[in-house]
Amino acid sequence: MRKTSKIKEIKLKDLDAENFIERQVKEIRAMVGKGVAINALSGGVDSSVVTMLGHKALGDRLRTVFVENGIMREGEPEMVVKAFRKLGVRVELIDAKKEFFSALKGLTDPEEKREAITQTFYKEVFGRIVRESKAKYLLQGTNYTDVEETVAGIKRQHNILKQLGIDTQKTFGYQVIEPIIELRKTGVRKVGKALGLPPEIYARPPFPGPALAARVIGEVTPQRVAIVRQATAIVDEELKGTRAFQWLAILHEDKVTGLRGNKRDFGLQIELRCWDSTDAVTATPTRLRFDKLTELADRIVKEVPGVVSVTYNVTRKPPSTIEAV
Amino acid sequence: MRKTSKIKEIKLKDLDAENFIERQVKEIRAMVGKGVAINALSGGVDSSVVTMLGHKALGDRLRTVFVENGIMREGEPEMVVKAFRKLGVRVELIDAKKEFFSALKGLTDPEEKREAITQTFYKEVFGRIVRESKAKYLLQGTNYTDVEETVAGIKRQHNILKQLGIDTQKTFGYQVIEPIIELRKTGVRKVGKALGLPPEIYARPPFPGPALAARVIGEVTPQRVAIVRQATAIVDEELKGTRAFQWLAILHEDKVTGLRGNKRDFGLQIELRCWDSTDAVTATPTRLRFDKLTELADRIVKEVPGVVSVTYNVTRKPPSTIEAV
Repeated sequence: MRKTSKIKEIKLKDLDAENFIERQVKEIRAMVGKGVAINALSGGVDSSVVTMLGHKALGDRLRTVFVENGIMREGEPEMVVKAFRKLGVRVELIDAKKEFFSALKGLTDPEEKREAITQTFYKEVFGRIVRESKAKYLLQGTNYTDVEETVAGIKRQHNILKQLGIDTQKTFGYQVIEPIIELRKTGVRKVGKALGLPPEIYARPPFPGPALAARVIGEVTPQRVAIVRQATAIVDEELKGTRAFQWLAILHEDKVTGLRGNKRDFGLQIELRCWDSTDAVTATPTRLRFDKLTELADRIVKEVPGVVSVTYNVTRKPPSTIEAV
Repeated sequence: MRKTSKIKEIKLKDLDAENFIERQVKEIRAMVGKGVAINALSGGVDSSVVTMLGHKALGDRLRTVFVENGIMREGEPEMVVKAFRKLGVRVELIDAKKEFFSALKGLTDPEEKREAITQTFYKEVFGRIVRESKAKYLLQGTNYTDVEETVAGIKRQHNILKQLGIDTQKTFGYQVIEPIIELRKTGVRKVGKALGLPPEIYARPPFPGPALAARVIGEVTPQRVAIVRQATAIVDEELKGTRAFQWLAILHEDKVTGLRGNKRDFGLQIELRCWDSTDAVTATPTRLRFDKLTELADRIVKEVPGVVSVTYNVTRKPPSTIEAV
């Protein structure tokens, strides 16, 4: 850890993972001393690596919290908790589904939905846990790309505490520790592998912060998330063999006419997207075989209740974007 | 013309088009006598053939009305009027765009939209013209498939007059003439060709009654119809060479994120459908070349203002349907 103003990138070619781990473990120990630290694990590679580093440094004096927000993919919370249990790391699974869905109720604007999820996570759920805990040290998975994306001059450490509802004027002594701030994603993955994380964690493709809420056009309800979760599981299963950059299933709000048991009925539409890209800045739709597309549609209309129509996006980015909302 | 109860199909193999034309012309003359007849021309093959038969029988004593409802395809009213002018048939073009859009205002339910279009056509526009005209004879393009689809026992002739707002109890003497009631579509096309209609009329693929309103999810406004009209023109141009059964462009109500001039912006989505089918009862999405799909998307996002995303439907019918609304 260095002060924000002095952060220098460690390039992948210069990264000695073992050495890096040793150095970070020492620094975390030096900072926390006999104290207690806390961190939130999302299951993404960044927070997973931070959890492992913190665990190595502090053992039981690190409290790791996994917030189940109700908008994750099929089996995701269980998979993550189990993977860490195997490594001897205890993860607290916090059921906050009710808080998130109540914050999302009635919202249809994507920005408002995103904001509701962020606020609920920081202020309501994780913020409360941090404030109620005795932990004064907060481990954060900020990486070098995050630093670059932060406009120069913003005090990020101050920011995160404020986001958690901690008034640093009244309550002194909080410290934010960012062990992977010198690394980019590829470096983080390398360290994750060296830390003994399984490939399903260290090689995990990025997933948007608002999770499946970003895959629902219109209001995000438990029922609508359940639908897009099922469609996502099917697409993940069918496309995991492809070399595509990313794929996704989106539940539309528009209803379209379908036929169910010979009766004309309004049903749901799922849009599929699968992208070829190297940098996500530009992207083209993957030329999936037509058989694969039909197979995907067949499975989705058969297995996901209420869906009568499946489309495949054929637009480039730009003017499209990778995600729909 | 026979009485409804006695209608007998003329099979294609038994149809002598010249002979059929001669017989119908005679019968129309016999029924109308010195009177005046009226009919509505939609540009579809049925009403086109009826217009030609009526014209041959009655000349100027047939008044043919083409109602421009504002929801037709690019250049459609002009094309139809011009084709008939070439054949020496005068068609009255009635601009009723205002009436139709005002009836459609605020409606989003497909059934309500359909009903508004039907009611506006029969009661408001064509009904008024019929009631104000001196014509007591109404030529109708009912064909044998329509008869089959009519539940036995319904008095169709009475029905149509009622739909036009004509009270047959108060006003006597109206007669509905249905010259092609013994023919199916293929027979109608054969007669159309024999009548000298151009192929763009006699071989015309069917188009849904509510026209482009059936291609707009949500409210049907002049602006939204203009968008789907432009997309439809592009798809028609790009796919006219394929042997697909039918193709369509649908404007969604859902907005999706797009990038325009490097700025994140919400834009419109067009869904494309292209069907392989023989009977429209079941259908599968046409396996268009991926290049063609990308080309379609490229043209639509470039040429149609506001569109940032294009999808291709990959679902079979059932559970999908050919049209979306």
